[in-house]
Amino acid sequence: MDDKIGVMNVYTDLAIDSREMASKEDIEIEGVRLDVEGDENIRVTIVDIQNENGKRLMKRPIGKYITIESESMKINDVDTHEDIIKIMAQKIGELTELKPTSAVLVVGLGNWSVTPDSLGPKVISKILVTRHLSDTGALPDALEGSLRSVCAISPGVMGQTGIETLEIVKGIVDKVKPDLVVAVDALAARQTNRINSTIQMSNTGVSPGAGMCNKRLQINEETLGTPVVAVGVPTVVDAATLVNDTLDRMLDEIISQTTVGSEFYDMLKHLESEDKYRIIEQILNPYAGNMFVTPKEVDATIDRLSGIIANALNIALHPGISLSDINRYIG
Amino acid sequence: MDDKIGVMNVYTDLAIDSREMASKEDIEIEGVRLDVEGDENIRVTIVDIQNENGKRLMKRPIGKYITIESESMKINDVDTHEDIIKIMAQKIGELTELKPTSAVLVVGLGNWSVTPDSLGPKVISKILVTRHLSDTGALPDALEGSLRSVCAISPGVMGQTGIETLEIVKGIVDKVKPDLVVAVDALAARQTNRINSTIQMSNTGVSPGAGMCNKRLQINEETLGTPVVAVGVPTVVDAATLVNDTLDRMLDEIISQTTVGSEFYDMLKHLESEDKYRIIEQILNPYAGNMFVTPKEVDATIDRLSGIIANALNIALHPGISLSDINRYIG
Amino acid sequence: MDDKIGVMNVYTDLAIDSREMASKEDIEIEGVRLDVEGDENIRVTIVDIQNENGKRLMKRPIGKYITIESESMKINDVDTHEDIIKIMAQKIGELTELKPTSAVLVVGLGNWSVTPDSLGPKVISKILVTRHLSDTGALPDALEGSLRSVCAISPGVMGQTGIETLEIVKGIVDKVKPDLVVAVDALAARQTNRINSTIQMSNTGVSPGAGMCNKRLQINEETLGTPVVAVGVPTVVDAATLVNDTLDRMLDEIISQTTVGSEFYDMLKHLESEDKYRIIEQILNPYAGNMFVTPKEVDATIDRLSGIIANALNIALHPGISLSDINRYIG
Amino acid sequence: MDDKIGVMNVYTDLAIDSREMASKEDIEIEGVRLDVEGDENIRVTIVDIQNENGKRLMKRPIGKYITIESESMKINDVDTHEDIIKIMAQKIGELTELKPTSAVLVVGLGNWSVTPDSLGPKVISKILVTRHLSDTGALPDALEGSLRSVCAISPGVMGQTGIETLEIVKGIVDKVKPDLVVAVDALAARQTNRINSTIQMSNTGVSPGAGMCNKRLQINEETLGTPVVAVGVPTVVDAATLVNDTLDRMLDEIISQTTVGSEFYDMLKHLESEDKYRIIEQILNPYAGNMFVTPKEVDATIDRLSGIIANALNIALHPGISLSDINRYIG
Repeated sequence: MDDKIGVMNVYTDLAIDSREMASKEDIEIEGVRLDVEGDENIRVTIVDIQNENGKRLMKRPIGKYITIESESMKINDVDTHEDIIKIMAQKIGELTELKPTSAVLVVGLGNWSVTPDSLGPKVISKILVTRHLSDTGALPDALEGSLRSVCAISPGVMGQTGIETLEIVKGIVDKVKPDLVVAVDALAARQTNRINSTIQMSNTGVSPGAGMCNKRLQINEETLGTPVVAVGVPTVVDAATLVNDTLDRMLDEIISQTTVGSEFYDMLKHLESEDKYRIIEQILNPYAGNMFVTPKEVDATIDRLSGIIANALNIALHPGISLSDINRYIG
Repeated sequence: MDDKIGVMNVYTDLAIDSREMASKEDIEIEGVRLDVEGDENIRVTIVDIQNENGKRLMKRPIGKYITIESESMKINDVDTHEDIIKIMAQKIGELTELKPTSAVLVVGLGNWSVTPDSLGPKVISKILVTRHLSDTGALPDALEGSLRSVCAISPGVMGQTGIETLEIVKGIVDKVKPDLVVAVDALAARQTNRINSTIQMSNTGVSPGAGMCNKRLQINEETLGTPVVAVGVPTVVDAATLVNDTLDRMLDEIISQTTVGSEFYDMLKHLESEDKYRIIEQILNPYAGNMFVTPKEVDATIDRLSGIIANALNIALHPGISLSDINRYIG
Repeated sequence: MDDKIGVMNVYTDLAIDSREMASKEDIEIEGVRLDVEGDENIRVTIVDIQNENGKRLMKRPIGKYITIESESMKINDVDTHEDIIKIMAQKIGELTELKPTSAVLVVGLGNWSVTPDSLGPKVISKILVTRHLSDTGALPDALEGSLRSVCAISPGVMGQTGIETLEIVKGIVDKVKPDLVVAVDALAARQTNRINSTIQMSNTGVSPGAGMCNKRLQINEETLGTPVVAVGVPTVVDAATLVNDTLDRMLDEIISQTTVGSEFYDMLKHLESEDKYRIIEQILNPYAGNMFVTPKEVDATIDRLSGIIANALNIALHPGISLSDINRYIG
Repeated sequence: MDDKIGVMNVYTDLAIDSREMASKEDIEIEGVRLDVEGDENIRVTIVDIQNENGKRLMKRPIGKYITIESESMKINDVDTHEDIIKIMAQKIGELTELKPTSAVLVVGLGNWSVTPDSLGPKVISKILVTRHLSDTGALPDALEGSLRSVCAISPGVMGQTGIETLEIVKGIVDKVKPDLVVAVDALAARQTNRINSTIQMSNTGVSPGAGMCNKRLQINEETLGTPVVAVGVPTVVDAATLVNDTLDRMLDEIISQTTVGSEFYDMLKHLESEDKYRIIEQILNPYAGNMFVTPKEVDATIDRLSGIIANALNIALHPGISLSDINRYIG
């Protein structure tokens, strides 16, 4: 879904960008509340869009957006990963009201066969699914009483279906009638440095394919009739964004080094951002329209990220389980 | 689903067995019509259960059951496979009324991760899916006008999702509203020689998991509200069936060779079949309850069978496509 | 490899069976030492064939055979699994001399695409591979100095290759020159109750395909020029074995209940075991030659077993790592 | 392998680029012979580097480089694909001397788990492997006498095995002793428009990982002791290349539209190409070093390309097989 906001912003779902772009001088915006927690290892940003004014300025629906950023996600720093898991599990609790009897459906969006888009399906494969166990009594003794009813699907790995993702999800929601839907997806970032180091969660739903630029229908409380918590990780940057970012930094460097002709570089740089982006898009289009940028070791990265997200969901949804339990039962 | 008929018959869906067992002397049964076509290479049996009497005797719902048998399915005899594909495509037409505008949903039941149960999902991966192409105009020129609207899913198994297969299929049927559902599944056979050489089709629905002994809910016109054509291939024999069959043959051989004590072997053989089977089941249960027998090269076999079935469905559902087209576009 | 011993024994690699069959009255056999450890939860049997006499009687090469049996392997009893992992890691140390500088190659035999035969490849996917890290310095700090040089291959997932497994393994051994090769494989058991609850290890090598009845070449110190520890889990029983076992038990039950004609049942039962087995094999052969019996939930079982084995190998091969480290870095 | 040539050229293996860059005015270069065949649909370029002078100018080893370019590879134009298959099969014959008795090993380099790098393994899965069939007599009758001895492997990547790809390949070559090795790999292109529409073949070997920027050892006749035909398809462009290309085109467009200040844009454009590239690389590095650009539908693309390449190899290596045979036996 095209997410148009005041400044140039395509293919992005990150609230932080919205905040940065709407207010460069860090002035408080009426109707938008910003909180920052954490340290240099793990940074948590909570953006709460509270009314129509905030919605209009931020160009995003009213609701809560929690972002966890940590460079540790890019490497095998398991200690920090465990901290992230605990923080994420707790923050999920701040996004939605879960009762002990709440039944939850976790939906993994994306395509298993395209590595940077396989985050959703891989999370699903690590979710502790329990909905079917209640009547059969097959629950391991130690876990009785500590679990919620959780089920999980990956519409994208139901095969190349010919069916809209929203149709599949809505059809299953109508039958299963969960109290909450958690939707996990890979996203596109607006800045290259955000890739694979940011987890965004919100209670306003998700546009599947936003990250991979498919015009697909939105998945949210309005379309499903059920509250939706969306969890996304930017795993790609689209090619035009990458070029634009790099050009900006290149010009910054040149401008800082030359005096002669600097006004022309300034002119190049301050070309209306949207115009500059359109020029780049047009140039790229015949050759690279629809191309995305991803790191080479993307498979290890997606495995790592899917483990973090799945573990956090398992802890958040099953109140009696700790992280070491998860490792032993699922890992 | 337990399929109880007059003689011992568990875990089987094959109409031929019904026919054989209900009438050992080949007497015409009122309410049941039997036709046989083909030759020694490919044998086609059509069992038409027409009224309540036939239903009571055959212990199967009223409807049509078409079985294609050919030893060639067990090997790489591509010529005979092409004949089977054409016959199967034609017979599908005899099971249901397809208009040019009919929209079809193909459902692949079973578990990709258990090789003999992966037939359904593998067929789905080879179906020519078209439902999503109409509005985008992405259809290859040559195919325009020769296709129906076809979509496909593999719901996975309850152990993976926590959701009953029927719930998932019904949820999607309610949204997609196809005119016909084709459900593909792996089955259990009652005789070891039927494995991987028999394709059964019917218009009375399927009990998913019948082959792999999960008590799951039925998928048919009654539960879905849409006509259902079921396609099944026995890929396993359950352990108790195998033992019972072999014991019978063993006794036959001993009886034919000995005179002394033969009356005792007769006695052993004519133990009420159901009793003999129960004894065997009880003996096996602590050790091998729920065990199935399958050939070692099962992966190549399932690949081969899924290709035959998918090709036949593609030809049957897309009227303008021939087998060589399929090979080029899909293969 | 056909493993012929005094009594009927096909498709089996279990030393326990050898011991049972060679000496029904538990008499000490000269040249064979038997030790049993553990409790009713986990039972460890060590069979040490020490000289030519023992070799001749047991029909197995001179060497050590350690078997770990536990019903807990069939279910999700993670506490007992952790005990098994520790025991197995320790016993591996009793089978071979590992120095801190020893370089190890782990080989996963089998076919990923046939679920009961996928044990080897799945273990390989969970091995902590380190050989390539030494020069790049990519080792996570915390692990430095606690690891051996370990590499791992799955010849069967190098694709359907057309190359003998032994050729592939020997070719790689000649280049990599490890100090030890650990070969993991799925086996066939002689008794149905052994399936998925037994881990056998030995230092006499393995015949790949013994379990799945392919006449493939042996992998041992003689053919590789390097010491070999073999690790196997019976995941299947061949069909003829299953029938024979069940028939025996059936007859036991009938004999214990009838008086009349019991001498004939006795006669049936005491048919020379090998003859009885041959009759069964012949009867099965046209229909089910080469068929194997496996439980329905075999995918979950293989996942569980591969986790136990891989964890045990990781602990045994990397001296500075504990089980919780493994869970966090690998799991 | 860093492929340094006169002008800026990193991460590329395409002979065409070499030719273009070495001689902008299409002057014949002594020691280099260029031939062009085909039409606007499929263009075939043969670059023959014949002596030390050509080698020095083109910065590539002496040998033959055949490139097939066709936009049809990006879509489902099966008719043109069949033409490409026939052309490629014929050109392979021009790269190497195949006798009827030649034994061939096909090696699929790359990582199945990273979609744009999975070309090699996917080709391997479609190769008609025959080496193992000769003694077992399992060849389908119709194919006898029309096949060569062909085997195939996918060594995986060093991060999975801990073993250098060259070590694995050399170990197997030493055992199997083929007369020819065909190595298939995904590459990086220097120009975005080359992606997924170019197949390059040469008889000078390949540097595995060149495309994905791993400094891995070369696979060629010198390192293997066997002639090597390399087949590569650029499936990615590295991020720095993409930025640089786009910047150039952007500047061209601006320059063509403005008069004022154009000399400054010229200056920007004619920054020594290598300097400009280095600046871009430095800017990208902390954020996107090692990042690659690939189209979103990369999985369908790789499937399509692997089918074309595998079919061409099957026809080239097995003289008695036609394309329709391949479709029926393999597809």
